[in-house]
Amino acid sequence: MEDNRVRTYIRGFDDNLEGGIPRGHVVLVCGTPGTMKSSICWNILWHNAKSDGRRGLYLSLEQNERSLHDQMERLGMGLEALGPEKKITIMDLGAVRAEMANAEIESDRENWAKVVRGLVSEQQRKGLELLVLDSLDAYELLFERNLTRNEMFQFFEWLRHLGITVFLIAEMSPDSNRYSKFDESFLADGIVHLKLAEISDVDVQRRIRCVKMRNTRHAPGYHSLLVEGGQLAITKTILD
Amino acid sequence: MEDNRVRTYIRGFDDNLEGGIPRGHVVLVCGTPGTMKSSICWNILWHNAKSDGRRGLYLSLEQNERSLHDQMERLGMGLEALGPEKKITIMDLGAVRAEMANAEIESDRENWAKVVRGLVSEQQRKGLELLVLDSLDAYELLFERNLTRNEMFQFFEWLRHLGITVFLIAEMSPDSNRYSKFDESFLADGIVHLKLAEISDVDVQRRIRCVKMRNTRHAPGYHSLLVEGGQLAITKTILD
Amino acid sequence: MEDNRVRTYIRGFDDNLEGGIPRGHVVLVCGTPGTMKSSICWNILWHNAKSDGRRGLYLSLEQNERSLHDQMERLGMGLEALGPEKKITIMDLGAVRAEMANAEIESDRENWAKVVRGLVSEQQRKGLELLVLDSLDAYELLFERNLTRNEMFQFFEWLRHLGITVFLIAEMSPDSNRYSKFDESFLADGIVHLKLAEISDVDVQRRIRCVKMRNTRHAPGYHSLLVEGGQLAITKTILD
Amino acid sequence: MEDNRVRTYIRGFDDNLEGGIPRGHVVLVCGTPGTMKSSICWNILWHNAKSDGRRGLYLSLEQNERSLHDQMERLGMGLEALGPEKKITIMDLGAVRAEMANAEIESDRENWAKVVRGLVSEQQRKGLELLVLDSLDAYELLFERNLTRNEMFQFFEWLRHLGITVFLIAEMSPDSNRYSKFDESFLADGIVHLKLAEISDVDVQRRIRCVKMRNTRHAPGYHSLLVEGGQLAITKTILD
Amino acid sequence: MEDNRVRTYIRGFDDNLEGGIPRGHVVLVCGTPGTMKSSICWNILWHNAKSDGRRGLYLSLEQNERSLHDQMERLGMGLEALGPEKKITIMDLGAVRAEMANAEIESDRENWAKVVRGLVSEQQRKGLELLVLDSLDAYELLFERNLTRNEMFQFFEWLRHLGITVFLIAEMSPDSNRYSKFDESFLADGIVHLKLAEISDVDVQRRIRCVKMRNTRHAPGYHSLLVEGGQLAITKTILD
Amino acid sequence: MEDNRVRTYIRGFDDNLEGGIPRGHVVLVCGTPGTMKSSICWNILWHNAKSDGRRGLYLSLEQNERSLHDQMERLGMGLEALGPEKKITIMDLGAVRAEMANAEIESDRENWAKVVRGLVSEQQRKGLELLVLDSLDAYELLFERNLTRNEMFQFFEWLRHLGITVFLIAEMSPDSNRYSKFDESFLADGIVHLKLAEISDVDVQRRIRCVKMRNTRHAPGYHSLLVEGGQLAITKTILD
Repeated sequence: MEDNRVRTYIRGFDDNLEGGIPRGHVVLVCGTPGTMKSSICWNILWHNAKSDGRRGLYLSLEQNERSLHDQMERLGMGLEALGPEKKITIMDLGAVRAEMANAEIESDRENWAKVVRGLVSEQQRKGLELLVLDSLDAYELLFERNLTRNEMFQFFEWLRHLGITVFLIAEMSPDSNRYSKFDESFLADGIVHLKLAEISDVDVQRRIRCVKMRNTRHAPGYHSLLVEGGQLAITKTILD
Repeated sequence: MEDNRVRTYIRGFDDNLEGGIPRGHVVLVCGTPGTMKSSICWNILWHNAKSDGRRGLYLSLEQNERSLHDQMERLGMGLEALGPEKKITIMDLGAVRAEMANAEIESDRENWAKVVRGLVSEQQRKGLELLVLDSLDAYELLFERNLTRNEMFQFFEWLRHLGITVFLIAEMSPDSNRYSKFDESFLADGIVHLKLAEISDVDVQRRIRCVKMRNTRHAPGYHSLLVEGGQLAITKTILD
Repeated sequence: MEDNRVRTYIRGFDDNLEGGIPRGHVVLVCGTPGTMKSSICWNILWHNAKSDGRRGLYLSLEQNERSLHDQMERLGMGLEALGPEKKITIMDLGAVRAEMANAEIESDRENWAKVVRGLVSEQQRKGLELLVLDSLDAYELLFERNLTRNEMFQFFEWLRHLGITVFLIAEMSPDSNRYSKFDESFLADGIVHLKLAEISDVDVQRRIRCVKMRNTRHAPGYHSLLVEGGQLAITKTILD
Repeated sequence: MEDNRVRTYIRGFDDNLEGGIPRGHVVLVCGTPGTMKSSICWNILWHNAKSDGRRGLYLSLEQNERSLHDQMERLGMGLEALGPEKKITIMDLGAVRAEMANAEIESDRENWAKVVRGLVSEQQRKGLELLVLDSLDAYELLFERNLTRNEMFQFFEWLRHLGITVFLIAEMSPDSNRYSKFDESFLADGIVHLKLAEISDVDVQRRIRCVKMRNTRHAPGYHSLLVEGGQLAITKTILD
Repeated sequence: MEDNRVRTYIRGFDDNLEGGIPRGHVVLVCGTPGTMKSSICWNILWHNAKSDGRRGLYLSLEQNERSLHDQMERLGMGLEALGPEKKITIMDLGAVRAEMANAEIESDRENWAKVVRGLVSEQQRKGLELLVLDSLDAYELLFERNLTRNEMFQFFEWLRHLGITVFLIAEMSPDSNRYSKFDESFLADGIVHLKLAEISDVDVQRRIRCVKMRNTRHAPGYHSLLVEGGQLAITKTILD
Repeated sequence: MEDNRVRTYIRGFDDNLEGGIPRGHVVLVCGTPGTMKSSICWNILWHNAKSDGRRGLYLSLEQNERSLHDQMERLGMGLEALGPEKKITIMDLGAVRAEMANAEIESDRENWAKVVRGLVSEQQRKGLELLVLDSLDAYELLFERNLTRNEMFQFFEWLRHLGITVFLIAEMSPDSNRYSKFDESFLADGIVHLKLAEISDVDVQRRIRCVKMRNTRHAPGYHSLLVEGGQLAITKTILD
C-alpha cells in the first residue's frame, strides 16, 4: 500500500485503484436505494481505523448514531472491536442539535450548515483523516431551499481545502443515470458507483465500479460485489 | 423469530429478512396500482395481532373503515377472527372528522395533519406497536399544497421517534422507477417493492422484492408473490 | 351472479372478477383513443338495464345524445330495445345548458360543475344505480382551470358517498403508462385498462385488463377483447 | 356507399370503415412531417366533388392557393378536371387578409380567427359539405398565444355544430405518440393516423391506420399506403 | 433537368426528387452536429452557379467568410473555380456589422435581424436565386430572446415571398427526432434530413433522406451518403 | 504533419484528421465523468510543447495546479520533462484570485470572468498557441447565474478571435446524448467525443470519436482508446 493512498478494504478493489484512493480526494459514493452505500463507507472508516490507525468521522444525517452502530456491529464492524482508543466518531442530527443548544445558536436553517461545518473543522484540527457525509441529499435538506450550483461548488472547494479524504454518499434516482441529483459530479475527484443489476427477470446482482478517480489509472468496468461474513470483496462476474 | 423483528407473515419472505423487519423501522411499501399494497400491510397487522398479540393501527385515508374491513374479511382476515380483544384499530377520514368535531378544532388543512398525528400519538401511548399509513399520497392530499422536501423529512423523523414499526404505503407511477413520488426514499429504513411484471404480451405475474432494509442482510432479487386461500407466500419464479 | 356485484356483460370477463364489479365502487375505465371506452361502459349500462332492471345514467360530455344513441343502436344496443320503461337516461351538455337556463343559473364555469352534480344527485334520489361519466377529461374542461389534486380527491369522495356504482372514462396518453392524466388513480376502487397492442409491425389487437379491483380476487393479466355481432367477449389470446 | 358516409376514395380503406366516414364527423388527420396529410385530405375533397358532387372548402393556412393547386394538379387532381362548376374552394391567408381589408376589420390576432370562422360559416350557408383545415397547428399560430384547452374544446363544439364533415390536419412530433400537440384528441369523432414506418435501417414505408371512428366498426391495425399514378390505395403489407 | 427545379448535385439524389427541389421552396436541411449540413448546402450553391449560372448567397452566421471558403476550397469547390464572374456571395457576421456601421444603425438585437433581411432583399433585387442561411439556430441567437412561434411563422412567410429557393440549416439535438428545435417544421416546403447512423458498436455511416418535399413524389427511405473526391453521391446501402 | 495542423499525439488518431486539428479551431472535448477529458487535453498541450515548441495554457477551474500536475507527472507528462524553458502554464482558481487581489478588483461574479479573459489575453500577447479550458461547466459556475445562449455565443466569438487553438472541456450528462449541457455545440469548429461504452453487462471500453471537424475530412466512427505507459493510442476495436 502506498502511504498516500486510502485503502477501501474491499478485497480486490484496491488493486484496481493502484492501491487505493489518493489522500485528500473528495469522492462521491453513489447508487440507488439499497446499494449498501453506508456499509461500504463505514467499512472504509472502520478498517482504516483498525489497520492504519486513521481517525474518522461519520456524519450521519439520515440515521441516528445508535441505529447506525447497531447495523455496523451486526456486520462485525462495531466500535468496541477497535479497542479502547476508538478512532471513529459518529455524529448524528441529535449531536448537532445539542451543540447548537450549548452554543446558544439559533436553530435556523443557514445556521445548521454552519454548525455542521464547524464540527467538522474542529475534528479536523484534532487530526481527522477521513470523513463520511451520509448523505449529500440529507445535507441539502437541512437548508429549506435547494442549494444553487454555485453553493455546491463552494461546498466542494471547502471540503477539498480541509486536506482530508472525504466520502460523500449520494442517492441516485432509479430513473436516471446521473451520479447524483446534483449535476456537479465533475467537482468530485472520484466517483464510485454502486448498482443493483437486473440479470434476469428475477435475479439481481450487486455491482461496484470506479467511474472516475483522478491521479489513478483504473479499469472502467463493473465488478460483482460480494458480502461474505462481513467482508466485502469484488469477484469476477460469472453470468450463466 | 427474533423478538426484535416484526414478521411479515408472507411465507418464505421472512427467511429472506433474517426473520422479519427490525422493530422501529419506517418502511416504504410501494408499487403501481393493483399490486396489493393494502392487503400486504393488513396481512402484517392481522397476523402480528393474532400470533404475537401486537397492537396495530390501520390509518386508512383512501377507503372507509367498512369497505376496508369487508375486503379483508373476504381474504379471511376479519377482525372477528382475532377474538374478543381486537388488537387492530381501523381509523378512516370519517373518524378523523368526528374527532375534530368533538374537539371543536377548525377543519382547515394544517389542522387535519395535526389531528392525524395526535390520534397516532394517543394510540402510541396506549401501547401501539405497528402502524400502517394508507397512503402517503392521500396524507399529502390532506394539505392543500405539496409538502416540501423538508416537511417530508420532519414527518419521517417524527415517525421514527414514535418508536413503533411503521408501514407507509406509497403509489408508484407506471411511468417511473422511483419508489414514490416523494423523492426522499433515502429517509426510509426499508423499502418493499411490489410489481406487476409483464412476462409476455398477455401474462402478468405478481412480484415482491426487498430493495433496502437497514440492519438486515437480504438478497436483492425479485420473488413471485402467491395468494392462495388468503395466505400470502413467495415462491421460486419459474419462467417457461 | 352475486347480488352485490354489477356484471360487465363482457363474456368471460365477469368470471375473472368473482362475478362482476362490487356495487358502490368508483371504477376508472381507461385507455388511449380508439379503445372502445364508451362502448364498453354503455354495454354495462344497457345489459344491466335489460337483464337486471337497473337504472343508469350516461353523462356524455363529449358527444351529444343523438350521436351517442345512433352509435349504440348500430351496435344493437338502442334504447328502444329496452322496452317502454327505458331504464337509461342520456344527458349531454345541451341538457345541462337547458337546465341552467330553466333554473336561471349564471353559466359560469364553477356553476357548470354544480349543476352537473345536482343533476346526478336528483337521479340518485330517483333510484339511480349506475353512472357513467364520459369523460373525466371533459368534466375537467368545464372548469376554466386544471382541477387541483385536492379537488379531484373531493370529487371522488362525493361520488363514493352517492352509494351508486360509477364508471369514470379517462383517456390515456399514447406517451404514458399512467392510467389517467390525473395522478390520483389510487382514489379509484377499480381500474379497467383497455389497450391497442401492436402485435407486429402492422397488426394491432384489442386488449382488456383488470389492473385493480378492491374487494375482488382477479388475475392481473391481459385478455383479448372481441366484438362479435354487438357482443363483447374476452378470449384466450393466441399469438401466431 | 351509404348516403350518410363520406368516402375517402383511398382504395380499400373505405371498406374498412363500413363505407366511409360518417357525415358530420370532426376527424383528425395526423402524422409527422412528410406523411402526405395534405394530399390525402385533398384527395377526399376532390373525389367527393367529382363523383358525388359535394361542395368542399380547403382552408390552407400553410401553403398559398397557387402552390397547393400546382401540387395537386401534378397528382392529377387539379380544379380544371372538375369541369366548369368547380365544387372546391381554396382559401389561403392572402384571401383572409383581403377579406379583412374589405370589411375594414382591424388585423389583430383575435380578429383573425373570427374572420376565418366567418368565412367558413358563409360557405356553410352556401351548401358546404366538406371542410379541410390545413392545419390545426397553423390555426393556433394565428393567435399570438397558445389556445387554452377550453378554447380548443369550444372550437371543436363550434365545428361540430356546423353540421359538415371536417378534416383537421395536425402535425405529430417525431418524439411523441400523441396524435396532436393539442391533448384534446378525445374531442375528435375520428382519428386517421399516417406514419413513416422504418422497416429496416434504410427502408421506410408509408402507413395509414384508423385509430378511432365513432359510429363505425373498423379494424385497428396498420395498412400500407400506396401512391400509384395519383391514385391512393391501401395494400396488404408484405414484409420480406 | 426541369427548369423549375433546383438540382442538389448529389449524384443519384436528384433522380429521387423528380429532378431536384422545386424553385421557390423553403427547405430545411437538418441533422445533428457533424452531418455535413454546410458542405451539402455549399455544394448546391456552387454547382448551380457553375453549371446553371444561378446567383447564390451564403449567409454564414457561425463561421467567418475566410474559414468557410478555405473549407470549401479543400473540397474542390472554391470561388476561383467559378471563373471571373463569381456567382456566389458569402456574407458573415463581420459583413453585417460593417453594413450597420456604414448605415449608422444602432447595433441592438432587433436591428441585427432587420439588417440581415435588408441585405438579403438587396441581393434578391440584384437577381439572387438561391439562399443558404447557416444557421437558423445562429439567426435566433442574434436576438437576445427566443423567437415566438408566431415570429418564426412570419419569418418563413417573408422568405417564401422572396420568390427565391431557400436552404435553412438547422441543428438537430442528439436527444430528439424533431427536425429542428423550432417546432414549426410544418412551415417548411421540404425537409432534407442528414444522419450519422450507428451501424454497429463502432461503425457509423452517413445517411441522407428526403422526409418531405411539397410538389414532388419521392421515396421516403434513407440513402448512404458518399463523399469521394469532393463529389457527393448517394449509394445503395449495403449492410454486412 | 501540415504546419497549419495541431497534432493530438494520440497515435493513429491524427491520421484520421488529415494530420491533426486545424490551427485556430475552437474544439469541444466532451464526455461523461471518467472519460479522461483532462488527460487527453493535457496530452495535446504537453506533446505540442515538447515536440513542436508550442506554448500552451491550461486553465484549470476544477482542480488546483498541484493536483493536476501530480496527476500528469504520474502519466509521464510532468513539466520538468519539458526542460528548462517550460512551455506550459497552469493557472487555477487560486492564481485568478491572487491576480484579482493584486489588481484590487472587487471579487464579484462578473469580474471573475473578465479577469479570466484578461489573463488569457495577456498570455496570447506573449505568444500563446494552445489553450485548454477545464471546464466550460466550471467556467459557467463562476457566474452566479446560467449564461444565456447569447452570452455563450459571444464567448465563442471572443475565443475564435484570439487566433489560438482552443480545447473546451465539457461534461456530458449520462442521461443525454447532447455534446454539452450548453446547446450551442454548433458554435464549435470541432467536437471530439469520449465515451465509456458498455460492451457487456460488466465490460466497459474507452472510445474516442471525431464527431465534427470543420475543414477536415474524417471518418465518423468510434475508435477504441488505449492508455499504455502514458501513451495514448487508438486501435481497431475487436469485439469478442
